[in-house]
Amino acid sequence: MICTTKNCFSTETVRRLSVYLQNLRRIRENGAHTISSKQIGAILNVTPAQFRKDLSYFGEFGRRGVGYDTDQLIQVLEQILGVNKAYYIGIVGAGRLGRALINYHGFAGSNISVKAAFDIDPQKIGTSVHGIDVYDMNDFACTVKEHGIEICVLSVPVEGAQQATDRIVDSGVKAILNFSPVILQVPDSIYIQNIDMLSELERLIFFLNNDSSR
Amino acid sequence: MICTTKNCFSTETVRRLSVYLQNLRRIRENGAHTISSKQIGAILNVTPAQFRKDLSYFGEFGRRGVGYDTDQLIQVLEQILGVNKAYYIGIVGAGRLGRALINYHGFAGSNISVKAAFDIDPQKIGTSVHGIDVYDMNDFACTVKEHGIEICVLSVPVEGAQQATDRIVDSGVKAILNFSPVILQVPDSIYIQNIDMLSELERLIFFLNNDSSR
Repeated sequence: MICTTKNCFSTETVRRLSVYLQNLRRIRENGAHTISSKQIGAILNVTPAQFRKDLSYFGEFGRRGVGYDTDQLIQVLEQILGVNKAYYIGIVGAGRLGRALINYHGFAGSNISVKAAFDIDPQKIGTSVHGIDVYDMNDFACTVKEHGIEICVLSVPVEGAQQATDRIVDSGVKAILNFSPVILQVPDSIYIQNIDMLSELERLIFFLNNDSSR
Repeated sequence: MICTTKNCFSTETVRRLSVYLQNLRRIRENGAHTISSKQIGAILNVTPAQFRKDLSYFGEFGRRGVGYDTDQLIQVLEQILGVNKAYYIGIVGAGRLGRALINYHGFAGSNISVKAAFDIDPQKIGTSVHGIDVYDMNDFACTVKEHGIEICVLSVPVEGAQQATDRIVDSGVKAILNFSPVILQVPDSIYIQNIDMLSELERLIFFLNNDSSR
């Protein structure tokens, strides 16, 4: 549950808002300048009522039956999520996974972009991966400041994950997207999201085996 | 919150159990046959108290001060999570992402393995990706049964995501790990976990901009 000064809602709501935004951007690219409540429902795969409810936590938008201006709706969602400005990402760990993430195409059309990568391996430092420079982890704090990096993606081996995290925390970066299958210790002021495919699968298996949990 | 017949606990607990298991498997590979509560804390990066609490939802394991038998602890965790038998995965969508997932090395040491891939593209059907055959999506239901696939990973483009999901649901598969940035409509009996990097990042940005939410 997340509470702002106005309202409380689930983190799932925030996820849906992000999905709405991604799909509306795609709709706009295809040239649709206005969109009806019904079309939104069909394209976003939610009921118009769910869509309106998710937006309602943040104010009054659109009018029933009239439809939405696509650009305006995108702006509203960008404003709610706070992604109406550029955000720069640092990829910490330029190994196999890190390089795949640098080359990730899913950011197209968003205000999020990868700005720099970091590693401790002298073989990798100074190289460039798909146009992104790999910096020395020893220069982390100053490189992060220089490039205005506000979010780090952690893609280092398990053994180095906490140490790299400590360095991220020390640098003043407050948000970490963690791909390492490890439990990171961070101060309360740091936001962490974990992505770990094996954990997600094992969680699904747990659900499969505990049907009574629903 | 998840409730079994005995207890209620957060989905985060289940995630931690999976992380514990992954790390204990690594410890065992390195030859450690017993492990103390303190070592567990250090290696898993949680307090021994947290570790004991997470396990306590499922019964009494180990004794304070005595330490754990690594093999036994792994067995207990596998049993709790239900991963003490083999689970086979089908990758639905053998595009760029699907192929990367087939080649994912994170399953090593677990009982989870990729068994088959599926696509609708005649160019891809009948080919093999890192030793995994790509089947025709039209043969989905029977191929899934033939291979004993219980979990599907969805890595199709947004446009085809719901249709592919419908087919997964119709086949009797009950668990889906979804990589498409789309909200899928499924019956209550289906378990879905969503992995979407852009959504996770936008969620982090939302947190960054709503500090009062903590």
